[in-house]
Amino acid sequence: MKKSDLIREFNVQIDMAVEAHEILRGESGNEVPGVRMIKDELEHATVTTIDIETEQGVQEMGRPKGSYITIDAPEIRENNYLVHQDITETLAKELVKLLNLKEDSSVLLVGLGNWNATPDALGPQVIEKSLVTRHLFQFSPDELKGKLRKVSAIAPGVLGITGIETAEIIRGIVEHVKPDWVIAIDALAAGSLDRIGTSIQLANTGISPGSGVGNKRVGINEETLGCKVLAIGLPTVVNAAIIAHNCLESFMDELKTSPSLFRLYKEFNPKSLENILSQALSPYSGNLMVAPKEIDTLIQSAARIIAGALGICLHPGISREEYQMYLQ
Amino acid sequence: MKKSDLIREFNVQIDMAVEAHEILRGESGNEVPGVRMIKDELEHATVTTIDIETEQGVQEMGRPKGSYITIDAPEIRENNYLVHQDITETLAKELVKLLNLKEDSSVLLVGLGNWNATPDALGPQVIEKSLVTRHLFQFSPDELKGKLRKVSAIAPGVLGITGIETAEIIRGIVEHVKPDWVIAIDALAAGSLDRIGTSIQLANTGISPGSGVGNKRVGINEETLGCKVLAIGLPTVVNAAIIAHNCLESFMDELKTSPSLFRLYKEFNPKSLENILSQALSPYSGNLMVAPKEIDTLIQSAARIIAGALGICLHPGISREEYQMYLQ
Amino acid sequence: MKKSDLIREFNVQIDMAVEAHEILRGESGNEVPGVRMIKDELEHATVTTIDIETEQGVQEMGRPKGSYITIDAPEIRENNYLVHQDITETLAKELVKLLNLKEDSSVLLVGLGNWNATPDALGPQVIEKSLVTRHLFQFSPDELKGKLRKVSAIAPGVLGITGIETAEIIRGIVEHVKPDWVIAIDALAAGSLDRIGTSIQLANTGISPGSGVGNKRVGINEETLGCKVLAIGLPTVVNAAIIAHNCLESFMDELKTSPSLFRLYKEFNPKSLENILSQALSPYSGNLMVAPKEIDTLIQSAARIIAGALGICLHPGISREEYQMYLQ
Amino acid sequence: MKKSDLIREFNVQIDMAVEAHEILRGESGNEVPGVRMIKDELEHATVTTIDIETEQGVQEMGRPKGSYITIDAPEIRENNYLVHQDITETLAKELVKLLNLKEDSSVLLVGLGNWNATPDALGPQVIEKSLVTRHLFQFSPDELKGKLRKVSAIAPGVLGITGIETAEIIRGIVEHVKPDWVIAIDALAAGSLDRIGTSIQLANTGISPGSGVGNKRVGINEETLGCKVLAIGLPTVVNAAIIAHNCLESFMDELKTSPSLFRLYKEFNPKSLENILSQALSPYSGNLMVAPKEIDTLIQSAARIIAGALGICLHPGISREEYQMYLQ
Repeated sequence: MKKSDLIREFNVQIDMAVEAHEILRGESGNEVPGVRMIKDELEHATVTTIDIETEQGVQEMGRPKGSYITIDAPEIRENNYLVHQDITETLAKELVKLLNLKEDSSVLLVGLGNWNATPDALGPQVIEKSLVTRHLFQFSPDELKGKLRKVSAIAPGVLGITGIETAEIIRGIVEHVKPDWVIAIDALAAGSLDRIGTSIQLANTGISPGSGVGNKRVGINEETLGCKVLAIGLPTVVNAAIIAHNCLESFMDELKTSPSLFRLYKEFNPKSLENILSQALSPYSGNLMVAPKEIDTLIQSAARIIAGALGICLHPGISREEYQMYLQ
Repeated sequence: MKKSDLIREFNVQIDMAVEAHEILRGESGNEVPGVRMIKDELEHATVTTIDIETEQGVQEMGRPKGSYITIDAPEIRENNYLVHQDITETLAKELVKLLNLKEDSSVLLVGLGNWNATPDALGPQVIEKSLVTRHLFQFSPDELKGKLRKVSAIAPGVLGITGIETAEIIRGIVEHVKPDWVIAIDALAAGSLDRIGTSIQLANTGISPGSGVGNKRVGINEETLGCKVLAIGLPTVVNAAIIAHNCLESFMDELKTSPSLFRLYKEFNPKSLENILSQALSPYSGNLMVAPKEIDTLIQSAARIIAGALGICLHPGISREEYQMYLQ
Repeated sequence: MKKSDLIREFNVQIDMAVEAHEILRGESGNEVPGVRMIKDELEHATVTTIDIETEQGVQEMGRPKGSYITIDAPEIRENNYLVHQDITETLAKELVKLLNLKEDSSVLLVGLGNWNATPDALGPQVIEKSLVTRHLFQFSPDELKGKLRKVSAIAPGVLGITGIETAEIIRGIVEHVKPDWVIAIDALAAGSLDRIGTSIQLANTGISPGSGVGNKRVGINEETLGCKVLAIGLPTVVNAAIIAHNCLESFMDELKTSPSLFRLYKEFNPKSLENILSQALSPYSGNLMVAPKEIDTLIQSAARIIAGALGICLHPGISREEYQMYLQ
Repeated sequence: MKKSDLIREFNVQIDMAVEAHEILRGESGNEVPGVRMIKDELEHATVTTIDIETEQGVQEMGRPKGSYITIDAPEIRENNYLVHQDITETLAKELVKLLNLKEDSSVLLVGLGNWNATPDALGPQVIEKSLVTRHLFQFSPDELKGKLRKVSAIAPGVLGITGIETAEIIRGIVEHVKPDWVIAIDALAAGSLDRIGTSIQLANTGISPGSGVGNKRVGINEETLGCKVLAIGLPTVVNAAIIAHNCLESFMDELKTSPSLFRLYKEFNPKSLENILSQALSPYSGNLMVAPKEIDTLIQSAARIIAGALGICLHPGISREEYQMYLQ
């Protein structure tokens, strides 16, 4: 049973382009056509840019044309101020490049997810730590020019709380606020445990339907909002089916090492593997999430880094210390 | 200095129609033309209906044509379950009359105000205690028919948090959700201490600009939203200028009792009274709010009563016990 | 690799006595000496009572002498008011039996865990929904007698928030409040997914060191507090190592079905299995938790049931409706 | 009616020593015997030190012997980072002097008040922003020495939530944690509006019974805890009786200006003034609090300043930037 089958069978979402790309390359052994990848190793982070450039790339990767940048920074797990500061700068630089804002560009921050559920609360937490300025421009636009950009923000809650698709709520707001960019922040599901809380994905394609930790059924992108959308995502969980699958895969790898067992391996029915998985995850199948015990502090660190980088990128005219004090 | 002067001078908001009406009648000694008032004394509540019927009534009362119903129930302050239950039923009956819903009517609940500030948190608290159902209709519309109505809900936060006028956010959502009614719940400023936490106002005119505990500059009404709006308000504070004014008024009343002092009273310069007030409220003037120490529990009781009455009115097909369990 | 080895190797905590018992019986195929089990099948719940009666039972089960009652009620997952009500009554009955309170007994409720982390927030949530009365007795002891019992409550937070072992905090309070019972409510780690959110364990032995979702290093029991302790636990997660282990176990079971593969199974080195597991859980090993997406609503339902049952048991003189209104 | 009568009659609490001192000096026109006051005007703050030195001072001031330092910094109301930073440093310096800590001194921070009620939430908010370290010393005491001090923290909640007097809870914890100092942070009631949110009082006498925004009936001081107690207080409200009284006082002052009215003033019965006040505050009397609309952001700014100054004073070995990152 290949990982791509697993994903289909158990309805496992691979939210990160960099992981989808790894799986494709791993299974085929070839480069993925129509997709370009560049890796940049920095002191405290690896920045991987994946550009989906052709229709074939779109087909293979199962996501729209655009740039997907992943900042892998395992040191987010450690509580080292200087390192976090460095990661914040790295993230800010990538944001600046992707957004390419003008002095008077305006931005609507959207914190997706449910503030009541730890692993889904990243978006609302970033919003809480962000500086909102749009309303200040009504009174003193000239004073603020060049110092602050027009930023508004909302954490609309999830479908179960509002009864309204999140995309509908945001679209309504976008039509009135008319921002140049929507920046949507969301918790993601990773394909690998070591990405939890330590990997930040930027995508200038917005968010596709069905991704994220909760069940978001409608996409948040230019098509649904009528406005450019940058998605910032951080994995906070891994689907349990992936852990179970990894187990079986390691087991199979073990079998492959001896010739006699290899025969066994080849005979083994993929359908039985599926049954084994189903049984191990019963009664939940694709809806089980794995997270480390310290997930709440990991999310808090990451939210601080993301909000900090947004501040640097959106409000270039104020110093970092000042920024801290503006926040509530 | 008349109360109506005070209101103008110190920018004191009288959010309750019943109080505006009392002031007008008190100062003129006459009925207010174009305004009809009916009082209904029940065991645990007094229900006062004020109908503003003509343009002259609109002018005098300073608010739009429509029905303003006030349920004064001082026993909300006591923790008596049966009495609270009775007040909930009374409120539900008035809601049913004002809304006049059809079986398939849909409603968007809007919790105005700031969840971080106790006296402004009524709206978000009612939303939290309300049953949201709109999303359930996509999967099992027939099963729910006659039992539940389509209810969606949002607590959008205040201008200082979002950078967006609340009315803009709601208008955007209304355009997509297209509810038959918006029901907006808000904390009000009362003109009298004994109404804090114990008086519920319903208005089928929605909310006028500038009312409520926070500073809401744009109205939430049919004109701004393009959809019928019912406002539910509960006073949670009294403006400190009113307390100070009451003090001076009592003092003047005392002076009136002896003929020699009465002369003094007549001579006293209203401008000096104004100065005295300004000084007593410095450095804050119209922005000072008075609330009892136990305001948080008062709001909690009232939020439970309002959410309970909304449940009875919106979802007539489920029992009260069931309702409790549906809630989070 | 036996489950008991797994537990040792990966530092997996089995918090529920009923599961520890199942594992022991499963592996040995025999009854566990010194341990008595009674199962009672009710309409909406199975009540399993495990009594550890002898020193040998203590050794085998790895927990102190006492009664461990588990109420398995899978219907907690469904939102059916009447069924929840029935489960609440069942739980209340077991509480009444275990506590055996006198009219003037006093109780300190302790909500263990971290209110900021969803799967660890059960304890604080139950406290929030519980009626605290101890302070009322100073003013009107006679009026309350027979109606309410003296109940105090605290949610002290976790070591990382306070810097103090939770047991130290509670012991200090117990010395001053001198309750007859401490009732400690905690989120547990289950050994099986279907117990998440649906299984409530009562133990008149209190809480052993190291159990619960967070890392509680000191026990909360008569030995540490100097007062009888009843523990109420609800599993909110399963350790990921168990899911992974189940996978491998199912795989091995599959191998056993054919004679030729059975040989393979016997040859397979337990050490390799351990490696496979370690690899699948890297970089986290024993600290990874699995929970369903809807864990926050599961916990809310369970918290309501536990708080409701505590109310029935502790305050027999007030009706259930009244009780709801007393709560904040 | 003198202010000191008002205080007695309406049970108005004057929590700030500096205000009690002003009232005494104002009414008598003399220095208060046994009390020494030093004023220090800094750029962004006025630091007033009041030392109650003799038994007569204790009698006059109605509070125990000790040092009461007030930092009046009206600029806390403005959102200026550099000014806030300066005020933080000023506060830190006073804390250092009063506490006079050794390298291995240990401190228990206690956040008094109710996190659910905005004007009473200062204490819990400071706790949330403070760095707790005591538990780290069990693992790496040597590494932390000279860098961090042993700090533990608790926000125990109020009597209505726990059913236990806060002092009892803290005493129990103190007996186990055995800190050198308890630092108790509490919201106060001021005697003047312009101190709300802008005046910080330090008292090495701890907290006297009955002070603070909520109703704390037992003192938090060396006598009740058996350990030195430093109290940090910030006024977040003014009793409404004081505002009303100020009004009447200004009115009387107005009367005094003409000789004929002066006679009137002298004749006026203090008892009638009391009645006027009672009426203006009905139905609440001494339990009504006045606060500005923006009280929640004022408290947040002040909480950040207090937590920042505690950090500088308690953990001298880490830089301010590092400190921010250690916090959650």
